[in-house]
Order: sequence, then C-alpha cells, then structure tokens
Amino acid sequence: MPEGNETDHDPRQCDQGLALAFSFLGKRWNGVILGTLMQAPAGYAELRRALGRIHDSVLSDRLAELTEAGLVERLVDDGPPVSVTYRLAARGQALIPALQELSQWAKENASG
Amino acid sequence: MPEGNETDHDPRQCDQGLALAFSFLGKRWNGVILGTLMQAPAGYAELRRALGRIHDSVLSDRLAELTEAGLVERLVDDGPPVSVTYRLAARGQALIPALQELSQWAKENASG
Repeated sequence: MPEGNETDHDPRQCDQGLALAFSFLGKRWNGVILGTLMQAPAGYAELRRALGRIHDSVLSDRLAELTEAGLVERLVDDGPPVSVTYRLAARGQALIPALQELSQWAKENASG
Repeated sequence: MPEGNETDHDPRQCDQGLALAFSFLGKRWNGVILGTLMQAPAGYAELRRALGRIHDSVLSDRLAELTEAGLVERLVDDGPPVSVTYRLAARGQALIPALQELSQWAKENASG
C-alpha cells in the first residue's frame, strides 16, 4: 500500500479511552492480577500461586504500579505476624463489569 | 507472609476466561489494534498511522496473530493497485461490547 497519498482522508485514531485502558491492561499480568483480585482479596503468596509462572520481582512491580494507579489497595495488618493483603480499590472494582464481559467473550469465542 | 502453611485453604485461581482473554489482550498493541478496527476497517498504512509509534515488524506480527486467532480478517483487493484491508472478524466483533465498557471505564476512572 502506497505511503504517499495520505491527504484525502482524516487520520484514523484509536479510541482514546481504550488506549488509556490498554496502557496498563496491555501489560502482561496486569489483567490476570485484577481478575484474581476480582474474586476476593489475596495475600502476596496466594496471588503468586494463583498466577503461576510470574517472577517475584515482576509481581512486586505490577502490584506497585496497580496500587499507584489507584486500582489496587495494599492493606497491612501489623500482626503479629505482619501480613499484607491486596484488594481492588474503588477504581478497580469499577472495572469488574468490563472484566466479566471479557471473560464471557473469551469463554464463548476464544477457543477453536 | 509465610510460604509454609498453605494447606488450610483452596488455592486461588484466576478466572479462566480472563486468563484466556489476556493471553492476547495482555500483549502490547493488540487491544489498541482491535480498538482501532472497531471503528472501521483500515488498510495497513492507515492502521500504522493510527497507532503511532509501533514498528512495522511488530504491527505485521500482531496482525498475523490476530488473523490467525480469528479476530481479524485480511481482505485482499487484486486491484490494480493491490490493496489489503483489515477488519474485525465475527469473533472480533463479539468483543466490541467489552471493549466499549473498558473504554467507558477508562474515561471515568483511569485519570487523576
């Protein structure tokens, strides 16, 4: 396709909301971390087991990013023993309907 | 959090539909490629401009994967000049409600 004659139509743009959503959901693990916390809050070790082959440093980074973005909350119980629990913050809970729709779509359409 | 005493609760699992959905939506660019084609079919050059800083080889790879997965269709017009258009296949169109919900969420929640 020629690159030259580009002046006769408006440039296409990606939906800006989607671009924003995928600026973090399009990063490996973030979607499944949120999908796991959607079911119930979880401690770090529990989350790590649920996710399978994620490296510790990657999970820590992702949780820090998601917390920073206001999607996840980190709750510290002083104990003893000290324990840390992660759960969806309000902004993350607002994402649940979209995640459920994605899950439904995948079950109906992604295989075969 | 101690790693030892793990026998007193069921292992948490990520929602399998979501894990499936994010096996490709959690790959950089795939979400925004689908979000761009959601608006209208597009040629390769048009898509590339809409996406901004994507490399040619990456865009080609992603389109091949999305086509292989049955989400995108590649239409060849023999011309002359030969032209190729990409559009959502039925399986990709079925994803539109979920993408719209994600977009709406991002506009309402992702900033600030």
